[in-house]
Amino acid sequence: MGNLAENLAGKFIVLDGPDGSGKTTQLRFLAEHLEAQGAAVERVRDPGGTDVGDKIRQILLDRGTSALAPLCETMLFMASRAQLVAERIRPALAAGKVVLCDRFISATAAYQGASGVDAGKILAVGDVAVGSLWPDLTVVLDLPAGAGLERVGRRNGQADDADRMESRPLAYHDAVRQNFAALAGRYPGPVVCVPADGDEGAVFERVLGELARAFGG
Amino acid sequence: MGNLAENLAGKFIVLDGPDGSGKTTQLRFLAEHLEAQGAAVERVRDPGGTDVGDKIRQILLDRGTSALAPLCETMLFMASRAQLVAERIRPALAAGKVVLCDRFISATAAYQGASGVDAGKILAVGDVAVGSLWPDLTVVLDLPAGAGLERVGRRNGQADDADRMESRPLAYHDAVRQNFAALAGRYPGPVVCVPADGDEGAVFERVLGELARAFGG
Repeated sequence: MGNLAENLAGKFIVLDGPDGSGKTTQLRFLAEHLEAQGAAVERVRDPGGTDVGDKIRQILLDRGTSALAPLCETMLFMASRAQLVAERIRPALAAGKVVLCDRFISATAAYQGASGVDAGKILAVGDVAVGSLWPDLTVVLDLPAGAGLERVGRRNGQADDADRMESRPLAYHDAVRQNFAALAGRYPGPVVCVPADGDEGAVFERVLGELARAFGG
Repeated sequence: MGNLAENLAGKFIVLDGPDGSGKTTQLRFLAEHLEAQGAAVERVRDPGGTDVGDKIRQILLDRGTSALAPLCETMLFMASRAQLVAERIRPALAAGKVVLCDRFISATAAYQGASGVDAGKILAVGDVAVGSLWPDLTVVLDLPAGAGLERVGRRNGQADDADRMESRPLAYHDAVRQNFAALAGRYPGPVVCVPADGDEGAVFERVLGELARAFGG
């Protein structure tokens, strides 16, 4: 029995998806919903979320390092993630909190996979980086590539990776979407896809529905 | 036939070993020796050697990030290395240069191995990071842990990682030495150990002897 908040104690939940799919908004809705039910929520974002992670994030976002090799990018994301898991995610889970994480290894599989890095190798390196701590559920917000980019454009550079992402061709963003869609079959943790079209409230109902299906409550 | 310089064209040579083992001096001797024979030499250091690698190196050396998780450190070294291989080592080898590299994956296996990261996993992640480009020869300069630290101390902080390294207990440095010694049996490329005691000229003769044994000339 129990409500959703109780059932999610000590669980590790990731929201992921293309830029503009609304994951940051949905993550906020979810945190507020669970906290209203009395849950202890730890919200983190990947990359970032720690001192060293923020420094790594800066290297990744820096326009001057646009010539980053895809394997270097991949390893930088993994470095930030290794620290995030060790410093924040594991302690929060051990304390019985529900961890809500904005992006995770799923994002590297989708984005660096679209840059030509083998997805199987990304998952293998990810397994080492996070000490085999895979999410209890990854919710992928699915949106056609064009629609996501349009939303990012409307944010007018507020998102700090909007510039970098918008400069990529649509075919790249489409490959990212395909990679997210293909995750469910190969990811070491459970993955569900949720359509992210329509208004935010409707999308949130779908997200809650998936969480209830996976954890009850 | 041919001299050593000719035989090393397009080869990837790494010098590695504990701090204070003299690898930077030996690398300079070797570069000068080969250049005097007419070789085109590309000298690189790992971590570093590229713009992003230098930024990563700063994160690794920063005293404020002393709480770096060993897996984060491991991934940061791999990130710098991935860029170094893509941006400098592969192009130099393709141009027929001999690449002389100060440290490589061997160092991560030794140091992060001594911090508790599984050496097999380090080598597996390394294989992904460098796209399976393993050195044609890795020369490990071997020295008792105490002797190396004494030399680093005499440099009086000139080496930028002296501070960080000296603060570790001797048992750690001894584990590093053991890990270097154990590499030959498990490393994907050939590894030879050279005693690094005695004067620099004598050590250099040993290094040259190993290169001649491996490549002729």
